[in-house]
Amino acid sequence: MASALLPDDSRFGLRRQVRLPGPLRLDSGAALAPVDIAYETYGAMNEDKSNVILICHALTGDQYVASDHPITGKPGWWWRMVGEGKPIDPARYFIVCANVIGSCMGSSGPASVDPASNAPYAMRFPVLTIADMVRAQAMLLDHLGVGRLAAVIGGSMGGMQALSWPTIFPDRVESCVVIASTARHSAQNIAFHEVGRQAIMADPNWRGGDYYADAQVPSAGLAVARMAAHITYLSEAGLTEKFGRRLQGRDAKTFGFDADFQVESYLRHQGLSFVERFDANSYLYITRAMDYYDIAEDHGGSLAKAFAPSKARFCLVSFDTDWLYPTAESRAIVHALNASGAQASFVELSSPFGHDAFLLECPELNRVVDGFLKGGRA
Amino acid sequence: MASALLPDDSRFGLRRQVRLPGPLRLDSGAALAPVDIAYETYGAMNEDKSNVILICHALTGDQYVASDHPITGKPGWWWRMVGEGKPIDPARYFIVCANVIGSCMGSSGPASVDPASNAPYAMRFPVLTIADMVRAQAMLLDHLGVGRLAAVIGGSMGGMQALSWPTIFPDRVESCVVIASTARHSAQNIAFHEVGRQAIMADPNWRGGDYYADAQVPSAGLAVARMAAHITYLSEAGLTEKFGRRLQGRDAKTFGFDADFQVESYLRHQGLSFVERFDANSYLYITRAMDYYDIAEDHGGSLAKAFAPSKARFCLVSFDTDWLYPTAESRAIVHALNASGAQASFVELSSPFGHDAFLLECPELNRVVDGFLKGGRA
Repeated sequence: MASALLPDDSRFGLRRQVRLPGPLRLDSGAALAPVDIAYETYGAMNEDKSNVILICHALTGDQYVASDHPITGKPGWWWRMVGEGKPIDPARYFIVCANVIGSCMGSSGPASVDPASNAPYAMRFPVLTIADMVRAQAMLLDHLGVGRLAAVIGGSMGGMQALSWPTIFPDRVESCVVIASTARHSAQNIAFHEVGRQAIMADPNWRGGDYYADAQVPSAGLAVARMAAHITYLSEAGLTEKFGRRLQGRDAKTFGFDADFQVESYLRHQGLSFVERFDANSYLYITRAMDYYDIAEDHGGSLAKAFAPSKARFCLVSFDTDWLYPTAESRAIVHALNASGAQASFVELSSPFGHDAFLLECPELNRVVDGFLKGGRA
Repeated sequence: MASALLPDDSRFGLRRQVRLPGPLRLDSGAALAPVDIAYETYGAMNEDKSNVILICHALTGDQYVASDHPITGKPGWWWRMVGEGKPIDPARYFIVCANVIGSCMGSSGPASVDPASNAPYAMRFPVLTIADMVRAQAMLLDHLGVGRLAAVIGGSMGGMQALSWPTIFPDRVESCVVIASTARHSAQNIAFHEVGRQAIMADPNWRGGDYYADAQVPSAGLAVARMAAHITYLSEAGLTEKFGRRLQGRDAKTFGFDADFQVESYLRHQGLSFVERFDANSYLYITRAMDYYDIAEDHGGSLAKAFAPSKARFCLVSFDTDWLYPTAESRAIVHALNASGAQASFVELSSPFGHDAFLLECPELNRVVDGFLKGGRA
C-alpha cells in the first residue's frame, strides 16, 4: 500500500493521493484494483477520532473543497462552508474530501491506466454506482484509520453519497447532511443526462472513448453536454434576473448566429471552460452512476427500510427554485426517515439561484449546517 | 407569379406551393426574393371572404395541419382540432396553413436555391424574425385574395405568430387564439435553443451549413438538439408517469451505456426520427427567430402599446404543467391586452403533458377554441 504526498500548493489543504490494492467489489459484479483515491484533508483528527467529517462532491466537483483548484486556480468549490470560522471548521473537525472514483482528478477513472493492458481503461473502465463511490470512500477512511464519521455531508450528487452512507454503513455514520438532492434519479433527470451523453458520443473525437493518446479530445460534445446541464442548475427566474434578454456588448441584434444575447455568451463560456478541467469519459461514467441511483430500489422498493438499520441523525435541505431536485424529493426522503424512526430535520430555503444555490452565497444554509453539526456535538 | 399545384395525396387538404416575386423586406434590412410558400388549404372561402382562418405552426411543425405528412405518413399535427366536426371545421371555414419561411417543407429557407448564386442559400439565407414569417403569410393571403382573417390561431411558435398578427396588421384580424405561448422568449428559452444550435454547429458534418450537395448531413448534432428540446416540451410529472425509471425490455441494469431506461430509448428515437424530416440549418434559423421574438421590445417596451391599434378579440390558453411557456407568460399578455382595452379571454387548462399538451388529446382545449370561434360568429 503506497501513499504519495503530492506537492502541497493548496491554500490550506493537504493534497494527497493513495493507491489502495483493492480489489473493490462493484455493484456491477466487476472488481476494481488497484483503487487510486485523491483526496484533501483539513484540520486534525482528535484522540478518539470522533471529529471526522466526510464531504462528498457533486458530478463535476472534486476534492478541492476548500483549496484552490490546481487547473483553474479558483478557490475551492465550498469555501463558503469549509474553513476558519465557517460551519465546517478545520479548527474543530478533521475534514476529508475525496475525488469520487470514475472522476478525473486523481482517483481511478476511465483515464486511469488499466493494469491488465497498461493502457488507459477508457470505456473498459467498469460502470459504477453511487454506492460504489461510497465504498471507495470507506476504503480511504479505513486507510486513514477512521472508523465512524461524525458527519457525512454533500449537495447534489454529494447528497446522494451522503444519503447512501448510512444505508451501506449504518454503524459508521453519526449524522448526515443532504442538500439539494434526491433518493432516486427521475425520468427527467435521466433524460437530461442522456442528452449530455449523446452529445459526447456524437463527437467524432470521442472515438468510442479511446482518445487519450491524442490531442483531439471530444471537447465540442462535452461542451454541449455541460451547456445543457448548466441550464438545469439554474432557475428560470435567476436566469431572467441575471441576463434577461440583454444583448452582449452591442446595442442591437446582429441578425447572425454569434452570441447576441448575454445568456448565450455565458453558456458558451460555461461549456468551453468546463472542457479544460474535465474528462468526457468521466462525464459519461458519473452521469450513468447518478441515473442508476435509486436507494429504495436497492432495498426492495422501500426507502424507509433502507434507513432502518441506521442510528444517524439527518438534516435535509432543499431550495425553493431548484427544479432539478425539487423540494418534493427531499420531503419524500424525510417521510421515509420518519417512517424508519430516524431523527430528521428538514428545511426548504428560499434562493433565486436554483439548484446551484448550495454552492453560492446563502447565509441561511451556513446557519442550518452549523446548527445541525453543533447540535450533534452538544 | 407562378402557382404550382403539387400532387394531392393528402387526406383532404389541397397541397399547394406558390412562388411570389417579392421582395419581402425583412426586419434585418435584407430582402428576400423570390418568396416560396408551401401551404395547405381546407374548405372553401365564402362569398364575402369572412370565413378564413389562418393556422400557424410551431418550430418543427409544417403546413400539414390536417393532412398526412408526406415523409412520415402520420396524420396532420392538429388533426384533433381541424376537420369535420372539429372546432376548426372545413365545412364552415376556409382554412389556410403555410410552412413558415426559414423552414424546409417547401417554403423559402436555407435549403432553397439562392438566385444570386444558383446554389443553396445555406447560412447565406437572411436571418428572420417571427414578424417576417407573419409578413410572408400576409403575402400569401394577398395572393389568395384574402383581406381579413376571421381568426388566426396557433400554439407555441404558432402562438407567437398569431399574437404578432394583430400588432403588424391590426386591420386584418378579427380574432386571435394564442395557445401555450408567450410575448417574448425568456433567458431560459434562449439558453435551451443555444444548446441546440451549438450541438448542430459542433457536428463536423455541418461544415458552416454547406452540406446540401452531400449525403453527410449534421444528423448527430440535430438529433442532440431535438433531444434537449424535447425534454422541455414535456412535464417532469408526465415523464415520470410515462416512463419513470422503467428499464427498456430488460429485467436488470446492464451496467453499460446502451439505452437501459425506457426514457433514454424514447429520447433517442425522438432525435433519430426528427432528422429524417427536418433540415439542421432550418432549425438554426427558426430557433433564432424565436429567440429574437419580443413583441414589447418592438413597441418601445410596452406590450399594451403593441395591441392598441387592433380591434381583435383574443383568446389565451396555457397549460398548468407547461414550464417552457408557463401560465405567467400568458397572464402577462392578458394584462397587456386589458391595458390596451382589447377583449381578451384566458384559461389555464390542466394537463399532465406539459408544453406538448396543445398537440395532444385535450377535449377542454377543443371546447375552448370551439366556443371562442363560435362566439365571434354569433
